[in-house]
Formats: sequence, structure tokens, C-alpha cells
Amino acid sequence: MDYDIIIVGAGILGLSSAYYLQKNNPNKRILIIEKEGGIAQGETAKAVGMFRNIFTSYTNRLLADTSINFYIHIQKEVMDINLKFDKYLWLVSKEQFERFSSIIESMITSKEIKILEREELRKIKGMNLDVESDEEAKIMGLKNIYKGLLGLKCGSLDQHLLARYYKEQFENLGGEIQFHTKVNRLIIAPKKKLGISKEPFVWQDSRVAGVLTNKGEMYADKIILATGALTNELLDPIGIDSHMKPKKRQVFQIQDSHLNELLNIEGFNDEGTIPFTILPKSGIYMRPVKGEKSFWIGCADDLGRSFSLDTTPEEDFYYYNIYPVLIKYFPQFTNLRVKNLWAGLYAYNTIDGMPYIFEKYGVIVVTGCSGSGLMKADAIGRIVDGLYRGEEFVRLYGNLNFRVSDIGVEKRNVDREEFLL
Amino acid sequence: MDYDIIIVGAGILGLSSAYYLQKNNPNKRILIIEKEGGIAQGETAKAVGMFRNIFTSYTNRLLADTSINFYIHIQKEVMDINLKFDKYLWLVSKEQFERFSSIIESMITSKEIKILEREELRKIKGMNLDVESDEEAKIMGLKNIYKGLLGLKCGSLDQHLLARYYKEQFENLGGEIQFHTKVNRLIIAPKKKLGISKEPFVWQDSRVAGVLTNKGEMYADKIILATGALTNELLDPIGIDSHMKPKKRQVFQIQDSHLNELLNIEGFNDEGTIPFTILPKSGIYMRPVKGEKSFWIGCADDLGRSFSLDTTPEEDFYYYNIYPVLIKYFPQFTNLRVKNLWAGLYAYNTIDGMPYIFEKYGVIVVTGCSGSGLMKADAIGRIVDGLYRGEEFVRLYGNLNFRVSDIGVEKRNVDREEFLL
Repeated sequence: MDYDIIIVGAGILGLSSAYYLQKNNPNKRILIIEKEGGIAQGETAKAVGMFRNIFTSYTNRLLADTSINFYIHIQKEVMDINLKFDKYLWLVSKEQFERFSSIIESMITSKEIKILEREELRKIKGMNLDVESDEEAKIMGLKNIYKGLLGLKCGSLDQHLLARYYKEQFENLGGEIQFHTKVNRLIIAPKKKLGISKEPFVWQDSRVAGVLTNKGEMYADKIILATGALTNELLDPIGIDSHMKPKKRQVFQIQDSHLNELLNIEGFNDEGTIPFTILPKSGIYMRPVKGEKSFWIGCADDLGRSFSLDTTPEEDFYYYNIYPVLIKYFPQFTNLRVKNLWAGLYAYNTIDGMPYIFEKYGVIVVTGCSGSGLMKADAIGRIVDGLYRGEEFVRLYGNLNFRVSDIGVEKRNVDREEFLL
Repeated sequence: MDYDIIIVGAGILGLSSAYYLQKNNPNKRILIIEKEGGIAQGETAKAVGMFRNIFTSYTNRLLADTSINFYIHIQKEVMDINLKFDKYLWLVSKEQFERFSSIIESMITSKEIKILEREELRKIKGMNLDVESDEEAKIMGLKNIYKGLLGLKCGSLDQHLLARYYKEQFENLGGEIQFHTKVNRLIIAPKKKLGISKEPFVWQDSRVAGVLTNKGEMYADKIILATGALTNELLDPIGIDSHMKPKKRQVFQIQDSHLNELLNIEGFNDEGTIPFTILPKSGIYMRPVKGEKSFWIGCADDLGRSFSLDTTPEEDFYYYNIYPVLIKYFPQFTNLRVKNLWAGLYAYNTIDGMPYIFEKYGVIVVTGCSGSGLMKADAIGRIVDGLYRGEEFVRLYGNLNFRVSDIGVEKRNVDREEFLL
């Protein structure tokens, strides 16, 4: 056994986990193995790169808030990760506002959000607040914009730079990464080998002892899967439930000079753009990317979209499902075509929308972040380390204590997240 | 729309659901569709046909106990379903006995089980209580039998006869069944149709409205999936999580005159056999089938066995995984070969081992029974009906009230089952 810990996956969660593991277990030999040729080239690369501390779940808010605080610390004290407070703008209907009134109230109190009244929203030129006067929009079930909720500690960062931060910290502590190493399956071995062929048998006490890769077998005291939406490919064959379903999510880039007025609005953020904006329907969101004079647009599709590993982007999806809604609120997008598009996979936890971090049969699994792993990666890395060390509580950034089992399987104790995008 | 309710699957759960739905909604037109040519030909047919009210989960005990009471009522008052109190005999090690001592205590108090001391167990001729004196058994980690737990309200019934009972009741009330009808996929439709091609779109409010079968499209006000371990095949493509993983479980028939002494023991049950017996290791169980002078043998394999729809029985599985343990406790099986074998699928809920009965996007799903659906089928059928009617509580047999949402997803309130076989 050459390594104490093998982490599968050099995405943001694998890297942050690796860093805290190496930091708190300095005598352990830790190896990350990654199928791609570099870090953060899987789902991390496809993420929209936004962060927010606005969630309905208390635990989610906590995990994001402490992680964002840590990212701010990195940006200020350590290195540029291109962290910017673009802010989030939820455009909500009256019904939505009333439905979430108690949580909105608490976020106003804690100064996490600011309410924007309709008069203030009118400074977003060309935005149509009153879609219900449009017959077509009415038939489509679109609602007038009643208020805006401006998330203040929300913005964007460069996930590649953040990933590089964790990688460098990990390597500085002596951690190793091996690229182009794909895990084909997990290896199960009995804790006490009998030396009989066909081991392990059902009556033996067994555990996940290693990985079979394209470069051969590798064994470690502990295997950690930070394989996101691909986790079922490794766990299903050995009968461990990841509690996660993979689902395609697409991003469409629209680039046009008609969008300039949205990309040049003073008063919301330092960039002078409209914030990252979420429409009142279907979780349709638009991220302004001023440098490329474009918007990245996506939506929180649900029913009718399969759980699968398909990542083929579908241009038609934009025209049928997003465009008709988008142009009612933002007529600037009328007739604009998709310039570029890509699709990634959400590791979707359908039960409570929160991450799963648990150990079973000797393998530690971190998955199920449901599209908001990047903004919780720091907390998650610390929790993975705490789980490895068998700690009941782990210290998150800012000296917050978090009970490790709360985010596990058997003693899970989280409230359901309703703001999934 | 020709039917109010379409139930997919004429297994025991589809049939019991159909009966209670038709009984309590007499004006609704209800249709069961089934891919096979008759009822109970899928997983129901492959079940070992045992029932027990001995579980660690209070909810599981409740669901089984009330269902068993109803089956006793059928056997006594309505028709022969070949219900017999064969009894269950858990042979437990000292560690197991101590680990479950509090639950054992409560089951003794409620007179559900009787403790058999080692002296009493010796009347089972040829059984070896003290395996630890055997060097090989010791290496295998086998433990001496410390006590026996005899489950009294436990036994066997003919699931085909029980299925026929529900079918006849359902049909007597006017319910219909259509065989040779295989559902290829669920049909999603917007609640308000716009008449545009490519409907439904993401921005429409949609629901599961029908099924596409080998005989064409069929629509109903409500679709109910009683498709057990095959549920993911229908739900994954539309992005609804069943919360269930399918897993192969095998049964091996051993028939030999050496087993006669076990099939002829007075004092346990009316049949004069050893009870349905569970060994202290790996959930290995043996069901005596006196009429065919054989035992049906299986085990609760876990780690290393895939979640999949594979149902190929593997004869070697018996020789490698069951036989070495079995012969240490029951040397009568030494050198006996497998006469027959079959495999079915467990609809395995890995989180709490309990059924899931929930509605999402207009489809009602009943699955996740984890191998003990038959013995809870009556309660489950009543709960499905209660969920359909939007009741908070449903009346189980014996006038027990059960909160429908306890066994659902969002407000789930069950304790984890640890006695899975």
C-alpha cells in the first residue's frame, strides 16, 4: 500500500478535500487521481462560476457563507481568484414573494438581501416588469415582476483559479496528483485475506480497498470519491447508494450589441452591469459577462428531463424553453441566436437538495451538491477531512462548528433546499 | 380520457392498491395494465412467500402486523391462501443478541417472540451450535449460536392465491385488468395545452398524464406505478427520483433425503418442520418446503453486488457464499448440490429500508419495499388509496390510523429498518 488516502477526482471538491486532509494529517501520503490531464476540467469547468449565500436551507446558507468568507480571504490576502460581487437579482412575482416571505424577512434582517421596489427596478433599461398585459405571456403563465431581491454577498469567481489555489496548497504540503488516470472500478477486499481465489465472499468482512485504473490497481487505506455526477458509475456496480442522480444542465451564450444596455448599468455592482438575474419563471437565469459582451443563460429544468450521463447540448432547448420567457421580460434578446453552448451534469440530490458526505464500507463519498458545489467547496473539504479523522464536529472557516453527521446518511439532519437553480 | 386511474403492474402491490382504490372510489374507472399474461408473474412470483411482523422499525412492524392480521382474516373467513404459521427462527450469536437486546426485550414483552435457549435448540437434530470449535469456521468469523429467537406470528402464504384474492375483489367491484400491455414510457403533458408542437415546454405546468404502451397511448387522470424494482426504467427518463435501487436476490433449492430430519421436527409448527431459519452470518436463510422435500435458501448479500436489473441466477454464488457457512451450522447440507435456482429483484431502499409511497408531478409511486412487500401489501394498498384521495390519515386493518405522509418523501417519518433479509 503506497498511499494512505487516494482521492478520485481533481475537481473543486476533490482539491479542497485534499488540501484539508493533507493539512490536518501531515504524515499521511495522499494522492489525487484524475482522468483528465489537468485539474478542474470536468463539471467544475462547466460551472457558471457564481456564488451566493442565499438559500432556504439553514445548512446550505451556512456552508456557502463560510466558504464565501474564505474565498474573500483568498482574494484579499493570498491570490487573485477574480472574485467579484456581481450580486444576484431575483425578480419575483407577488405569489413567489408571499410564498417565501418569512425567509425573505429573515434575510433582510441579517442584511443578506435588499428589497428592490418596482421603481428601482425600472433603472434596468428595456426590462418589462408588466408582462401580464401581453396576451401571449399571460397564456404562458408569466407573472408581473413584483419586487427584486438583491443578494449582496453574491457574485462570481474564477473556479479554475480557486482550484489552482487548493492544488498549490495541497502540493506545497507534499500532496501528489496523478493525471490521465481513470478509475474503471472500485476494488473490494476482505479485511482479513484468506488467500483463496474468488475472495471476497459474502461471509467475509470487506471494504473498498482500492481502485482499478487504466494504469493498474492502486490501493490505499482510504478511498475518497469526489466524482460528482459520475459517482454512480463507481458505486452502483458494488451496491452502494450515492443518493444522487445525474442530470444534464445547459448553458447558452448570447452575444450581441443589443445587450450593451444591460451590460452597462451603474448602481448594482463594481462591474457596472445588471446583476446575475433570475426570472420569475422556471429558474431561468442570466449571467452578464461584460468582458465577452455576452450573457450566459440557463434554466432549472425539472420534469421531463432525464437522469442520465448525457451531456449533449441542445440548441433547440434554448429556443423552445428559455427564449419565449426571456424575451417577455427582456425584449433585448428578441431574435438573438445562440453563439455558443455547453452542458454539464448536476449531481442532483432530489430529497433535500443538499450535499451528501458519508462513509460506507470504507469509502468516503462526497456528491449531491445539486449545482452549488463550487460555492460550498471550502466547507465541504473541511467536512471530508473531519469525517476521515472521525471527528464529531469540524471547524469551518470563521470558527463555526459543524456536526459532520448532519450531512451524512444515517443521522442526516438538514432542512430541504428550495432555491435550486 | 377513458380511465380515471391507470395502475401499472399487476403484482401484489398493484393489485392490493387497485382493490382499495376501487372500493373507496366506486365511481372511478380503474384499469390495471400488466406486461405479462397474468397477475403476480414478476417479482411477486419470485418471492420466497414468507411473512413476519418482526422488524426493528416500528412503522415496518405496524405495516406488516396489520397486513398479516388481514391475511389471517382472509384465510379464516374468505378463501384458502395457504397461510401457515411456520414461524421464524433467528439463530443469533452473543454479539447479535446483545446488539439488539432492547428491541428483543420489547418483542418478548409484546409476546411476538419467544427466546429459545441452547438446550431447546438441541432438539434440531444435527444442527451445530458450537461452530467456533471448528478451526475453519473460526477463520471464517462464524460465531456460536447463543440463543434462538422464535417469531410466532410469522410464516408462509401462497402469494399467487393472495394476489388472486385482490384481483377478484377488484374485478367484482368493476375494476379492469389488461394483460400483455407493456409501458415503454410515461407521457408528460401540460395541464393547459396550447396546441403547439413540442409541448410541454419547461415554462408550462405539466404532469404525468399517461403511458405509452406497446398497444398505444393511454391517458388517465392519475397514473400509479406499482412497478417495484423496474420503477427507475420509467422514472429516470423523466427525471423523477424513485428513491429505490434494484438489486438481484437469488434463491437456491436443495432437495435431498439427508434433509428429512430437518423437515420432520415436532414442536415448532403444525407442519412439523424446522421453522424458516436465519443463520447468524450474512442473513443466510433456509425455508423448509416439506411438500417438495427441500429447502429454499438465500442470503442478504450487500457489498459488491451491483444495483442493476440483472436477474441471471448464479449457481456458483451458492457454493462460494452460502454453502461454506451453511454446512458449519447444518452439516446435513454437506456435498448437496443445487437442484433449482432463480433470481428476482429487490426494490431496495438503502436509506431506511422502508417502502416509499409518494406522489410527484401527478404520478403516484409505490416502491422500495426492500424485499418485504408481500407481507405489507394490504397496508400499502390502503395507503395508496389514501394518498390518491388526499387523506392525511388512512385506516389500516384493525382500525389503526396511519399518517400517509410518514411513508412519503417530503415529510417522511420512519425509523430505519435493520432486519432486512
